[in-house]
Amino acid sequence: MDALDILTDLENVIPFFQPIFSADEQRVIAYEVLGRYQSEGSIISLGSFFHDDSIPEEYKFEVDQLLVQKALERALKLDDDVSIYLNRDADLLMYRHGEPFLQDLLAFEKRGLNLKRIVLEISEGNYKGDFGQLDHLLQYYRTYGIKVAIASIDSDTNFFERIGQLGPEIIKINLRALKSNATAASFTDVLFSLSLLARKIGATLLFENIEMSYQLQFAWKNGGRYYQGFYLYPPSSEFIERDLLKQRLKGKFHEFITYEKKKLEAIYSAAEFFQNKVQDIIVKNKKANYEVLFTSLIKEMDQIAFRMYVCDEDGFQKSSNMFKGESGWYSQKEYIEKNWSWRPYFLENIIKMRNEGKGILSDLYSDIETGETIRTFSIPINGSDYLFIDISYKYLFENEQLL
Amino acid sequence: MDALDILTDLENVIPFFQPIFSADEQRVIAYEVLGRYQSEGSIISLGSFFHDDSIPEEYKFEVDQLLVQKALERALKLDDDVSIYLNRDADLLMYRHGEPFLQDLLAFEKRGLNLKRIVLEISEGNYKGDFGQLDHLLQYYRTYGIKVAIASIDSDTNFFERIGQLGPEIIKINLRALKSNATAASFTDVLFSLSLLARKIGATLLFENIEMSYQLQFAWKNGGRYYQGFYLYPPSSEFIERDLLKQRLKGKFHEFITYEKKKLEAIYSAAEFFQNKVQDIIVKNKKANYEVLFTSLIKEMDQIAFRMYVCDEDGFQKSSNMFKGESGWYSQKEYIEKNWSWRPYFLENIIKMRNEGKGILSDLYSDIETGETIRTFSIPINGSDYLFIDISYKYLFENEQLL
Repeated sequence: MDALDILTDLENVIPFFQPIFSADEQRVIAYEVLGRYQSEGSIISLGSFFHDDSIPEEYKFEVDQLLVQKALERALKLDDDVSIYLNRDADLLMYRHGEPFLQDLLAFEKRGLNLKRIVLEISEGNYKGDFGQLDHLLQYYRTYGIKVAIASIDSDTNFFERIGQLGPEIIKINLRALKSNATAASFTDVLFSLSLLARKIGATLLFENIEMSYQLQFAWKNGGRYYQGFYLYPPSSEFIERDLLKQRLKGKFHEFITYEKKKLEAIYSAAEFFQNKVQDIIVKNKKANYEVLFTSLIKEMDQIAFRMYVCDEDGFQKSSNMFKGESGWYSQKEYIEKNWSWRPYFLENIIKMRNEGKGILSDLYSDIETGETIRTFSIPINGSDYLFIDISYKYLFENEQLL
Repeated sequence: MDALDILTDLENVIPFFQPIFSADEQRVIAYEVLGRYQSEGSIISLGSFFHDDSIPEEYKFEVDQLLVQKALERALKLDDDVSIYLNRDADLLMYRHGEPFLQDLLAFEKRGLNLKRIVLEISEGNYKGDFGQLDHLLQYYRTYGIKVAIASIDSDTNFFERIGQLGPEIIKINLRALKSNATAASFTDVLFSLSLLARKIGATLLFENIEMSYQLQFAWKNGGRYYQGFYLYPPSSEFIERDLLKQRLKGKFHEFITYEKKKLEAIYSAAEFFQNKVQDIIVKNKKANYEVLFTSLIKEMDQIAFRMYVCDEDGFQKSSNMFKGESGWYSQKEYIEKNWSWRPYFLENIIKMRNEGKGILSDLYSDIETGETIRTFSIPINGSDYLFIDISYKYLFENEQLL
């Protein structure tokens, strides 16, 4: 399709709308506006038009302006708690300092469209301009209630830095990366930390490109509040009934919740199992030294653990490491007096154990020496010392509810 | 300094070494190699030489090669558990497919330098080449035991994506960003999530540019295992005694640990305080409906809370929100039947409360509606329902150990 064809036939430039659903309400809470061009009965995306560097900015702006106007005209008829997501390329956003675009929005505000419903999806991929000016413009828009969404994955800019600078209301995550097995594992870890970052800064996670049930589950499990994708509903020229997927989504979430609760319950039971088993061994070895305690533990937990050691409540290691190598258990004296208080959760768990007099089974994490996915069971052994038992991947794998 | 002066006077190109200290051993565990040129009694950094785009790659490689050789020659005399960090610009790394550099390393391996001690600090800032090829080369190096460090902040590439692709052994964090107050708050949140990501993937955090005591504390508190900076020791032409800072670091860590334990203990006490206070009100209102329960809670907690609601164990909200606005408390009915199971920690906390019959005081996070930094106290109220009380920032601020 030639750019000129589009520019001389603007009445066939039309907005499409893809609904965005929320996990809390299980219904449509927003639409993303997508540019389309209809020609001879077929509908084509305007994506390549907007990404074509050879087309002058003013032409792109003209087409975009028309799209926004047509979309907002339609949006006037929506419930007034439904948001409108507009894609903004950073260059397009900066066009004439962002003034004409803002004037268009303000004209719609006069007609009853609360600008709090406008979300700008900023893509900065190829932006070569001044980020300071861009941020300044976004902060200015925000004074009108307009919100900012940024895409984390798939962007070329430093996402961490941008989150810090922008404090976006919404972080958009593209689930396409989930399809490749090579990156899926680390993607999960990255998303886990991203969901906690979003929680810390009060941002909402929107997952896009949800194309299968397991992706919806993945999004739900990783703190996603908003969902979008063909699995839910394709872009369309019309708005849909807000509760269209309510029953289906409720059913899905019920499945996810049931599965997750079972899993959490299993982890809780495992913690109880370790508590009883280890507590028993500790009591029997109350007056023994660490070496004797380790010998008893190894007898009972040879197939479960691969490392054990004792620390005081400041994190200084009081014993050797007992470590299970290829040819069996051996002692690593060089660990005595090392300090582990700098590790995430370490002191927090010590205080919890001290106050509750009970052990803790950790989340899954990668052992820093072996690289294996493990959990650690820790438990107070007397007034001042704490026993740490690293559970092997093999055992977790054999008890798969622990993975 | 002219590039030609350096190239014609290579014997005055010398390596400097900046020690890296570990939190667990409180002593030197590595040196970063830095390029210097000595001329007429003064020593200048070769940084600008290596960053000068007008200097041909082969000249840079020649100078770099010499530096590495001189540095490793010296390193042969170090303890065999001390690592050597070599800065590698991606372009320099790819020079002649990385072969000459690898051959140099292998020559030193023959002389007794275990390549597990070599850490390549990759900077990709200006790299315009093929990342696939770069990663392939790094994986190849790794088969020799060589480790990879990447710098998170200060890089232009997408850090999240790169973590996923590379799975670096070490993530380097530049503390310079901490100096600006504007970014400090979000920087803390970003680092928190980064430290959890590192834990998940088994990477070690190295904090560089530590120039003040509070930065050391910040690094320690955020999961930093390795530290580097002028506050500890400047780059120097000589190696230092490994235990040089042991007593000072032990003292510092003792301070940090004591402070952190006090803080954690205070949070634990606050949780106990809320547990007793709220449990008491729940018992007194055992047969009352939610409205009556809320009225009692507001009477006792007007200065503490700003929002309260009840959910079932699947996260469906059973009550309205009671919310404290400018003009007092009011009920928000539209929250009934919303579901919160997608929120991080939600189901985990439900299972914990169900099993232990006890309340939980959350970590600090940003309220998604008000943007305020808050904590939430949640507690089971009967066999199936759970009460959530959001604690206001004002209260946390007045009880600063809770911030």
